Amino acid sequence: MDLITAIGLVAGILTTGSFIPQIVKIMSHKSAEDVSLLMFLIIGCGQILWLVYGIYINSLPVLLANAVSVLLISFVITLKLRYDGH
Amino acid sequence: MDLITAIGLVAGILTTGSFIPQIVKIMSHKSAEDVSLLMFLIIGCGQILWLVYGIYINSLPVLLANAVSVLLISFVITLKLRYDGH
Repeated sequence: MDLITAIGLVAGILTTGSFIPQIVKIMSHKSAEDVSLLMFLIIGCGQILWLVYGIYINSLPVLLANAVSVLLISFVITLKLRYDGH
Repeated sequence: MDLITAIGLVAGILTTGSFIPQIVKIMSHKSAEDVSLLMFLIIGCGQILWLVYGIYINSLPVLLANAVSVLLISFVITLKLRYDGH
């Protein structure tokens, strides 16, 4: 693997992994009132497009990071909808 | 501009613009308690690396989206630190 792909993969691990503290925070507080649903919906749509872009430009970091992010963001949205009902 | 660059730019506008509702929400609630500081710090570091990656692979969408995102995330972190002191 070349250096730049490695930088891209580390970037992807950070921006993708960044959603995990938010998930932990929502689950421990059992609250997501201050978390913007709109933000996560827009990110989700954007990352589906990044996924398409990553496939076309043949960039493994862009493809991998956004595939995992779409999953994590779906989980944040599920938690937000669940706790906002309380 | 080719189609795939256009898809990348739309993806960038969505994932970058997604931080704006969060900024509006924090400013209107004057609260950011449920917002994860760690999440935004990690995203910020990740996007600086994406910026480097975007420059190296010569991808205008990756470069532009992450340059603007770094600015917006710095603003979210500033707001979080400001309102958490209250």
